[in-house]
Amino acid sequence: MKTIDINCDLGESFGVYKLGLDAEIMPYISSANVACGFHAGDPMIMVQTVRSAKKNRVAVGAHPGYSDLAGFGRRNMDMLPDEIEGMLLYQIGALAGICQAEGVELIHVKPHGALYNRAARDRSLAAVVARAVSRFSKELVLVGLAGSLLVEEGKAAGLKVIAEGFADRVYEKDGSLRSRSLPGAMLDTPDAVAQHGLELAKRGVTTQVNGDVIHWDIQTICVHGDEHNAVENVRKLNSTLIKYYLIKNKYLK
Amino acid sequence: MKTIDINCDLGESFGVYKLGLDAEIMPYISSANVACGFHAGDPMIMVQTVRSAKKNRVAVGAHPGYSDLAGFGRRNMDMLPDEIEGMLLYQIGALAGICQAEGVELIHVKPHGALYNRAARDRSLAAVVARAVSRFSKELVLVGLAGSLLVEEGKAAGLKVIAEGFADRVYEKDGSLRSRSLPGAMLDTPDAVAQHGLELAKRGVTTQVNGDVIHWDIQTICVHGDEHNAVENVRKLNSTLIKYYLIKNKYLK
Amino acid sequence: MKTIDINCDLGESFGVYKLGLDAEIMPYISSANVACGFHAGDPMIMVQTVRSAKKNRVAVGAHPGYSDLAGFGRRNMDMLPDEIEGMLLYQIGALAGICQAEGVELIHVKPHGALYNRAARDRSLAAVVARAVSRFSKELVLVGLAGSLLVEEGKAAGLKVIAEGFADRVYEKDGSLRSRSLPGAMLDTPDAVAQHGLELAKRGVTTQVNGDVIHWDIQTICVHGDEHNAVENVRKLNSTLIKYYLIKNKYLK
Amino acid sequence: MKTIDINCDLGESFGVYKLGLDAEIMPYISSANVACGFHAGDPMIMVQTVRSAKKNRVAVGAHPGYSDLAGFGRRNMDMLPDEIEGMLLYQIGALAGICQAEGVELIHVKPHGALYNRAARDRSLAAVVARAVSRFSKELVLVGLAGSLLVEEGKAAGLKVIAEGFADRVYEKDGSLRSRSLPGAMLDTPDAVAQHGLELAKRGVTTQVNGDVIHWDIQTICVHGDEHNAVENVRKLNSTLIKYYLIKNKYLK
Repeated sequence: MKTIDINCDLGESFGVYKLGLDAEIMPYISSANVACGFHAGDPMIMVQTVRSAKKNRVAVGAHPGYSDLAGFGRRNMDMLPDEIEGMLLYQIGALAGICQAEGVELIHVKPHGALYNRAARDRSLAAVVARAVSRFSKELVLVGLAGSLLVEEGKAAGLKVIAEGFADRVYEKDGSLRSRSLPGAMLDTPDAVAQHGLELAKRGVTTQVNGDVIHWDIQTICVHGDEHNAVENVRKLNSTLIKYYLIKNKYLK
Repeated sequence: MKTIDINCDLGESFGVYKLGLDAEIMPYISSANVACGFHAGDPMIMVQTVRSAKKNRVAVGAHPGYSDLAGFGRRNMDMLPDEIEGMLLYQIGALAGICQAEGVELIHVKPHGALYNRAARDRSLAAVVARAVSRFSKELVLVGLAGSLLVEEGKAAGLKVIAEGFADRVYEKDGSLRSRSLPGAMLDTPDAVAQHGLELAKRGVTTQVNGDVIHWDIQTICVHGDEHNAVENVRKLNSTLIKYYLIKNKYLK
Repeated sequence: MKTIDINCDLGESFGVYKLGLDAEIMPYISSANVACGFHAGDPMIMVQTVRSAKKNRVAVGAHPGYSDLAGFGRRNMDMLPDEIEGMLLYQIGALAGICQAEGVELIHVKPHGALYNRAARDRSLAAVVARAVSRFSKELVLVGLAGSLLVEEGKAAGLKVIAEGFADRVYEKDGSLRSRSLPGAMLDTPDAVAQHGLELAKRGVTTQVNGDVIHWDIQTICVHGDEHNAVENVRKLNSTLIKYYLIKNKYLK
Repeated sequence: MKTIDINCDLGESFGVYKLGLDAEIMPYISSANVACGFHAGDPMIMVQTVRSAKKNRVAVGAHPGYSDLAGFGRRNMDMLPDEIEGMLLYQIGALAGICQAEGVELIHVKPHGALYNRAARDRSLAAVVARAVSRFSKELVLVGLAGSLLVEEGKAAGLKVIAEGFADRVYEKDGSLRSRSLPGAMLDTPDAVAQHGLELAKRGVTTQVNGDVIHWDIQTICVHGDEHNAVENVRKLNSTLIKYYLIKNKYLK
């Protein structure tokens, strides 16, 4: 039986501010991308999220973002390559420190928000992200958008790479994600999300760019934890995929 | 020949803001306590400081503080034990992440400012600090004020502990440090600092509390890097101690 | 017909983080204490809250707190008097700037969280708060806990002062508020909140301290907007008080 | 005798971090652009800077920037127009609050760093800045780069506008400022700065764009307070200009 991974961005609360239904979602995923305190999350939330992941045998990954709590890491910031590398090492290390205290192995890294989106299209930024991850540890797994430059640069840096697809987001014909600012960018029924997720798992993304048919395999399916219906979405996605796949992060021992 | 350690708090710049003469001081010390981005420091500064320490064969330690850049970590904040533990794991981990990328071993932890001072006198806080450090790694060395509860709790937690004395600060008769808000709290000539440091290295701190004579040995001498005469102070301290001691952090391989 | 004021702390969301049911609560109150970006709130939220208050003819006041978003301003911070005064002028001014752009008059100031609680009992801090408010404008109204030193110091500084009671919180026999960390500190049914609010409006707080009977009148009733049942609480409080009182901030023109 | 204004960005220290020689520079300028706590500055520094400006009869203006202390407001951030407007009202209001307490009139607004540079070339951002300033008060004066879209949009919004030239920066042939990342972008002797400042005051900036000769008058000369030779630069600029001009901000009563 083949494996598929279901991942979700978690630990995005901050202080008294609650975001996402982490406890409800954790049982249905196999990888948690944990916010590292720059765009969201704080040390206490990180500890709680790592503990919850451990209890649910979910792989823990770092989900670093721009230092912009007010903008939730969704706004581009002009930072120098060295600044970005330092910022990534800092955030990955901070979560790794908490993991170490909790007896949990840090498995992967998935950049957040504007950093993720830009690293998908900007080769030099993608290379900076890949270099930071590989300098932290060659054993870390890099998660990037299927077909993106981040996936390419991660492989070029000698990292294990997992290509990601989004169960609850609509793809454009060129294989890119439809912008969230456009209507209909999010699938919003559990059935639609689950079917789309299954499709991505089975067939990946196939698209035409300049007449060439391009195909990208997908190893991990992302579903959002802070959207309308989030818990139903992930539950249904899980119950659909489990008929055909072993749901797990293949790098989690 | 006996060894003695000279330590200094470094990496306390932030963005465009420069604080301390790190480059000038590094050659004369054996341990650098590196600010971790909460009370001072940022990822770029941390990277540069770790690199400079490596080049100078100086032991790198974490210098975590309250999340209070505006107050430089010198203001007490009422935080719960779990919040403090999370905050410490986060900061230690962040620096450890940078060290890992730079091929440098993280040797010690010394709390900063209000956290250091309170942990010297408040047993429950001292225990929280010791627990956080030991949960990160039993191999880390805890640095605390000679005679303080932090030293006691560090030992009770099974950690290696280094007792610290301050070359450039005046001690009260009860063995405590004279408050910086009082006149004459800082020694301000290189000769006075060097002689005081030598005295601390040779004889430690001896004091009377309630008629009992108490003696504390000292294994590391702190000198400040952001005071008037800082470079001259540390240079003179180094040239004075080196006549009698091997200047090194004994845990640095 | 006598007037009574109903106030609520609003505008405590931050970026993507939502806190409180501001829109639902606004129609039932007469004064909004608007967070000023240090313990909660951000410029966008402040603009929206001021607009909503204007539309609902609700008096706008500043609700300044410690610069501690992670702790929601509920943790004491050791700050110097001049630092507190500067911090208050800054926050009051920031909200006043937004009010000015929106054509709304800033009516009052009510400190938040740890600052409010400490200023109730610490005369020197109370005096600093009163001085900051009066230096901003002698026309501003200061809101403080009935019977507190903040009320005394506000009057001594020549300010108009409004004494506050809490409809949803239980009072100790000495007239202080029961700590939220104790069970039963919050009244949690709309009926209980409304009855307690009516009692406070009619009879104020009467207590015995060292055998002396002490009575404090109350001019404004606070109800929380982020608790269980918050909307029902304030709606019921409003519908109960309106039978006996004109519900308004008497300083709003 | 004609008047000319000399302005400098001041109050850019933060907590223990000192930046710029404000006290030494204040006597030689006529307008101080005061950082408002987002890219630099804090409430205490703002209070001190306003007091110093008052004592030296220097006009006080707000110098708002992006919320990016780590990047000193020099990094572009993708913010929505409403976010920028709110951020500006907040910062201008905060400084205005401090001015009000100190009995000082707020005269002008000059955006900082990346915001200033982008608003010079991006008409929609320029319009947002102009709208925020005019919504705060139609009496405020907007300071913008001579020939920039910010000057145009400020006038279109009905504001008084002051066109700025930089005494210590080199202009390109098209009238733009040479990027600081290029060598020779800064004039670095007091004589060169003073001569360039006098030239700007007398003749403004004349340039050719697409064959058309364009001329921009300049009403205020900026000199940096944190560069090498800063005090000497401004002193010499002042002593040079004062032979031909009355040095003052013409809007200061």
